[in-house]
Amino acid sequence: MLKAPLIAALEAGGTKMVAGFARGPDEILRRRTMPTLGPEETVSGLVDFFRKGVAELGPVEALAVGTFGPADLAVGSATYGSILGTPKRGWAGVRLLEPLRLALGGVPVVFETDVNAALLGEVAWGAARALKNVVYLTVGTGIGGALMVDGKLVYGLGHPEMGHLRVKRHERDEYAGHCSFHGDCLEGLASGPALEARWEVAPEDLEVGHIAWEIEADYLAQACLNVLMIAPPERVILGGGVMRKEGLLFLVRERLREYLRGYLAYDELAGDLSDFVVPPSLGGDAGLLGCVEMGQGLLRKLGAE
Amino acid sequence: MLKAPLIAALEAGGTKMVAGFARGPDEILRRRTMPTLGPEETVSGLVDFFRKGVAELGPVEALAVGTFGPADLAVGSATYGSILGTPKRGWAGVRLLEPLRLALGGVPVVFETDVNAALLGEVAWGAARALKNVVYLTVGTGIGGALMVDGKLVYGLGHPEMGHLRVKRHERDEYAGHCSFHGDCLEGLASGPALEARWEVAPEDLEVGHIAWEIEADYLAQACLNVLMIAPPERVILGGGVMRKEGLLFLVRERLREYLRGYLAYDELAGDLSDFVVPPSLGGDAGLLGCVEMGQGLLRKLGAE
Repeated sequence: MLKAPLIAALEAGGTKMVAGFARGPDEILRRRTMPTLGPEETVSGLVDFFRKGVAELGPVEALAVGTFGPADLAVGSATYGSILGTPKRGWAGVRLLEPLRLALGGVPVVFETDVNAALLGEVAWGAARALKNVVYLTVGTGIGGALMVDGKLVYGLGHPEMGHLRVKRHERDEYAGHCSFHGDCLEGLASGPALEARWEVAPEDLEVGHIAWEIEADYLAQACLNVLMIAPPERVILGGGVMRKEGLLFLVRERLREYLRGYLAYDELAGDLSDFVVPPSLGGDAGLLGCVEMGQGLLRKLGAE
Repeated sequence: MLKAPLIAALEAGGTKMVAGFARGPDEILRRRTMPTLGPEETVSGLVDFFRKGVAELGPVEALAVGTFGPADLAVGSATYGSILGTPKRGWAGVRLLEPLRLALGGVPVVFETDVNAALLGEVAWGAARALKNVVYLTVGTGIGGALMVDGKLVYGLGHPEMGHLRVKRHERDEYAGHCSFHGDCLEGLASGPALEARWEVAPEDLEVGHIAWEIEADYLAQACLNVLMIAPPERVILGGGVMRKEGLLFLVRERLREYLRGYLAYDELAGDLSDFVVPPSLGGDAGLLGCVEMGQGLLRKLGAE
């Protein structure tokens, strides 16, 4: 059997970078995780890693990056491949893609949001295999969302920004919200930092059974509900650090069932919703593998032209 | 120039039926509006109209219906072309499409939601000409929404149900909401009947400047905002009877601008949003013309196969 193409992949997160060389989930040949520090230091570390990898493994066929944002994803734009106006210190305007592309000998590139990449990975090899209408919501330092309709990522006026959905406040929540634009939008109320600011304790230390999780589940269920009413997916994947909390996924499903009240009589929405709202299944490799799928998708597209 | 194909079109609304024969906006050859009464009476009236039209104009090339719902739109389903479990008396389970198709001599058919049809009409000839990412929200007896992404109507788990979006309550609104499933979802709070129940006066008699319109605009702006964060359209069309109120569209734009707070720096969202949130431009013919576009689209598709 022909080997799948070798891809240089980078999950560029606000907290850490996961870079690797892989052909698919069973063939991750190199993987390196490093903290996201200042841009110069970080980019040069990545350049070194990719250069060394090529020296040892031979040339790759494409580079694929799934990045934190906002980032310029518009092919042909003067700042394509750059990080845009992020509050992340020193990173606004940084050209991330180009030095990496050059380090790999000028291969074809694909540059996407981290959550778009994660969604593509889960559809290719993970929790949404073979589905064509999928939402991926990641709940961590920020809240991001990706939407696939009929097998394609959705863009229109830019990409989805599900973190800034407006939700109805939980009656027992008095926290003002911390989004610098919108105050109490979804991200302002339900991201990791919002949990920490509201309860004055890190989310991982908030005990199971604390009212915090009921409130959190309420907001996330509202996001699932609104996504379902606007662009009805067959499945919603809830990922990100906050979702690792024991029992949270269960609470979200429960709340969503209450919100639906039996409206929309689809098999997918019957029962306890455990096949509708699911965790990602690629674990720590989701971002990396999403990039591998993107890179291979790019090559398929170039091959078909 | 070759004439565009002649389509038998039906906008099947819960209140009235608008049937016609047309080739496009400048060639509406027959048009008849009748109230939506009991199903037998209504369907036989439509059958008569279509039979007579064919006798006078000659055969049509397709039949296209944009219907109130819920309806079975799944080609191949045993109840395809039927109205499903509507609260509208006598209409649940009624086969609407088949008798009309037979009356027209068994032509190819397309059967869609009314709001999907209206969206297609506005993209073909109206307020969203040549755009590929569009939302159409209709605010009347109910609230319905249609979503186009990359030039195609969005389906996933069924079609969008934007009337059942969850919104944050306006602080001056004490009305409980009238949706029989969800109480205070968007439709429960902002449809025509909700306005009437809350203020005990018909929406058309509520004066401009009444707080009612501020509250109404708030809910509709939230819907626009959430649509924008989930499946970013280039334009949102707000139609339906309630939207005809003088000044309401302006209030929705104003409220949406406040909600956005400058987030998302796209040209389309700069200024007063008068090119982003727009009224339909096909007026009373929107539904009918949407059906004509659907019928012609079907023929293009059949021709291409």
